Amino acid sequence: MITNLSVPLIIKAPFAEETEKTGTETESGPDLGSSPSMASMAAAFIKTSKSIPQSPITFTKTFVPPIKLPISLRVKNNSHRRIRISGGLIDPDGGKLVELIVEESMRASKNREALSLPRIKLSRIDLQWVHVLSEGWATPLTGFMRESEFLQTLHFNSLRLQDGSVVNMSVPIVLAIDDAVKNRIAASSKVALFGSDDRPVAIMKDIEIYKHPKEERIARTWGTTASGLPYVDEAIKNAGNWLIGGDLEVIQPIKYHDGLDRFRLSPAQLRNEFTTRNADAVFAFQLRNPVHNGHALLMTDTRRRLLNMGYNNPILLLNPLGGYTKADDVPLHWRIKQHQKVLEDGVFDPETTIVSIFPSPMHYAGPTEVQWHAKARINAGANFYIVGRDPAGMGHPTEKRDLYDADHGKKVLSMAPGLERLNILPFKVAAYDKTQGKMAFFDPSRPQDFLFISGTKMRNLARNKENPPDGFMCPGGWNVLVEYYESLVPADNGRIPKPEAVVA
Amino acid sequence: MITNLSVPLIIKAPFAEETEKTGTETESGPDLGSSPSMASMAAAFIKTSKSIPQSPITFTKTFVPPIKLPISLRVKNNSHRRIRISGGLIDPDGGKLVELIVEESMRASKNREALSLPRIKLSRIDLQWVHVLSEGWATPLTGFMRESEFLQTLHFNSLRLQDGSVVNMSVPIVLAIDDAVKNRIAASSKVALFGSDDRPVAIMKDIEIYKHPKEERIARTWGTTASGLPYVDEAIKNAGNWLIGGDLEVIQPIKYHDGLDRFRLSPAQLRNEFTTRNADAVFAFQLRNPVHNGHALLMTDTRRRLLNMGYNNPILLLNPLGGYTKADDVPLHWRIKQHQKVLEDGVFDPETTIVSIFPSPMHYAGPTEVQWHAKARINAGANFYIVGRDPAGMGHPTEKRDLYDADHGKKVLSMAPGLERLNILPFKVAAYDKTQGKMAFFDPSRPQDFLFISGTKMRNLARNKENPPDGFMCPGGWNVLVEYYESLVPADNGRIPKPEAVVA
Repeated sequence: MITNLSVPLIIKAPFAEETEKTGTETESGPDLGSSPSMASMAAAFIKTSKSIPQSPITFTKTFVPPIKLPISLRVKNNSHRRIRISGGLIDPDGGKLVELIVEESMRASKNREALSLPRIKLSRIDLQWVHVLSEGWATPLTGFMRESEFLQTLHFNSLRLQDGSVVNMSVPIVLAIDDAVKNRIAASSKVALFGSDDRPVAIMKDIEIYKHPKEERIARTWGTTASGLPYVDEAIKNAGNWLIGGDLEVIQPIKYHDGLDRFRLSPAQLRNEFTTRNADAVFAFQLRNPVHNGHALLMTDTRRRLLNMGYNNPILLLNPLGGYTKADDVPLHWRIKQHQKVLEDGVFDPETTIVSIFPSPMHYAGPTEVQWHAKARINAGANFYIVGRDPAGMGHPTEKRDLYDADHGKKVLSMAPGLERLNILPFKVAAYDKTQGKMAFFDPSRPQDFLFISGTKMRNLARNKENPPDGFMCPGGWNVLVEYYESLVPADNGRIPKPEAVVA
Repeated sequence: MITNLSVPLIIKAPFAEETEKTGTETESGPDLGSSPSMASMAAAFIKTSKSIPQSPITFTKTFVPPIKLPISLRVKNNSHRRIRISGGLIDPDGGKLVELIVEESMRASKNREALSLPRIKLSRIDLQWVHVLSEGWATPLTGFMRESEFLQTLHFNSLRLQDGSVVNMSVPIVLAIDDAVKNRIAASSKVALFGSDDRPVAIMKDIEIYKHPKEERIARTWGTTASGLPYVDEAIKNAGNWLIGGDLEVIQPIKYHDGLDRFRLSPAQLRNEFTTRNADAVFAFQLRNPVHNGHALLMTDTRRRLLNMGYNNPILLLNPLGGYTKADDVPLHWRIKQHQKVLEDGVFDPETTIVSIFPSPMHYAGPTEVQWHAKARINAGANFYIVGRDPAGMGHPTEKRDLYDADHGKKVLSMAPGLERLNILPFKVAAYDKTQGKMAFFDPSRPQDFLFISGTKMRNLARNKENPPDGFMCPGGWNVLVEYYESLVPADNGRIPKPEAVVA
């Protein structure tokens, strides 16, 4: 299953490069050991897994959809789907996983060919998208979008295939070039994509160059054009005024050499793992924050519900996002270290949990982006997707409010074209129940009993080396967060700076 | 066919009201005679109709789609559709035209009921939307959108129906209310919609009130949030922070009493007319500007092509937009007067042409709005839709460029969900061919021979009482434009002001 992970490492890790420059994260980075995958690593901590079902946590209306949508119908009336799934995993979009990595026997010749072609240098985020495309997370895309795919994505959040069927596609996966590069390409129908180390990453064929309507792209993807959107500042504002699309031949698997490559399972590898484990349901959880006991509560409860629905072996795909995140999110290395500690504490059952990194960059585009997060997990074999409050959301960059309505994400997801096959599992927000001293699903009939620990609050507590209430997060996991903030270099005035100032 | 047009006229015309205030348009407004409909009026000018096919205009590549899209396939491979159409008109979206006007016998009681309900006062544009909804242009909508419809419109430009089928819906048809009105409605499940004359227009049932995310609505509909978008300034910026959706019972047909009501055929009336004429193809052309010979060239050519494809009786639906337009567009009254002159001059064959007003307000939302324009015409019986350069486009309100890529409209239209049944007919821009002294399709191989007469240029010529080149527009039609600009009150400095300053 992990043979692809052992191929020679060629592309220099952009993450490592960047952290070396700042002189912070690499030096104090986590040592993640040498286990071949997070999944099997997780399997080493079976000891505590059986205690969870007996936990005294009170469950309150976890799955009641708060909106008039066919969510519950979808979950309940899927007898035909369950039959199909028990005979195999959910089909990838378009029927077949589209992997774009060339056969090993062809690599040398493709490498030579690439060296002869007009060059496009990839940014760190561009390379993450090549990674995403190469492994088929964006199946059936065969490369960076041409204009017809770009326009369908912007306007319809979906693509119509040749056979008339529709697949979801909500965020543009595009490659921007400037005038100089466009002129250099001239009439060529092929180009080579190069990494930051000046080695070829991929060949793009049958290219199409079209205008990059930045304002329109931003407005239609984020529903705002306010300045300060992290992905826009990082990847669009200063990008070229042209987009180039075409079919990719990726010369070898994308690796980052950051100690985490072994945790980056491709959709094909995940599907193999689910099949090996005889999964008859796979429920995916997108994660870009440290795991706390509210998450664990939800995962355990979901599994219980799936068992009640008649599934025999539901497997959890805990799939933290590994690509670009904004400066004040906890960096991937620290999150993975934190996830490990939580697993060691037995919060998740390793027999029914796979932890693996999702290589996509983060848009923070709320209801638009959550569709991408869900769609990519279909391709990885998931037929259930858990969606919470304000998925992929953030504060409005210029106004004192959340950018998105907290309920729009799950509503949009439940109605999205091309995701009809996916069972959407909305959940209520978990909060610290002071009467129980535990994380529990929020009960609106007694709001005074609950304490909400937001990401900001959690970060502030960890930064100040304070402890959260008992039962919020296992102590091992919490210590990792404290350690992360300790690792940040104090400013001249002796204060621990906010992470924005350090990572940026 | 026109029985509905003779019902008592009750709602006071918002257009007439406004023009009375400015003291310009009403006084010099057109006298449109007393023919019962534009269709039959058009039928009075048969004399010149046969001369058109013999005109010496050169046709150049009218229907070659400039993009790699299944446009030509759709037109050519529709044998199954042609068979169906020859047995009847194209089905409305969802299978059945949804008309929301209550039975005549119920009007008095509905009127009484409305008087007892919490009230919402409609703006001029709100009333136009009630008109649109009441006649089924937006079929299968049963009233102003609830949140699930609003979100699907914003994100997917389409609605999924109960049976899983998808219909196009690209612009939000919503009703905004402010906090005071929301509080007044309180827990009521029904409200009454009132016109500007304080008489009830409709009852809205099973209402749902939800947040009006203005910025997001604007960004996702227009692809920009730049200030100065006409519809935004007119209908969104100062609208309430809540939207209210629900099923409409419209108490009687919406009338404007502006002398043009008899030209406002509903989709049902248009369908009757097409059936009466034994149409086996209906091609619709959306229009919000004066008609010139370039349009006529296109219509004639389209009919010829449809005949060549094997249709026996293609009918043109020339469907000028009658709702809100921006200040520098030529007002509806003048446009209709101009259309009449053009018809009198025999530019269109009245036997195969129906001219009727489309009651929708204009968004100027380019590729998003053109889908609405096309979808509404399916409901009116059209199975072919002609789309030109930059449909529903305008200049960017704050930057020196067009707001939309001129080709995106037809590309997006050809890929739009729910419009698969509609044959999209793109056309190249017509321009004045100096070598022929006529309007002709632009030939990019000899650009120097062509003169582009933009809307702005046309308006400036008419304002200055200059003539366009011979063959651009029939003299009778041109004189109407000159007359319109003459009717505008000169400013204190004696100059004819730009229409923005007068109509606003």
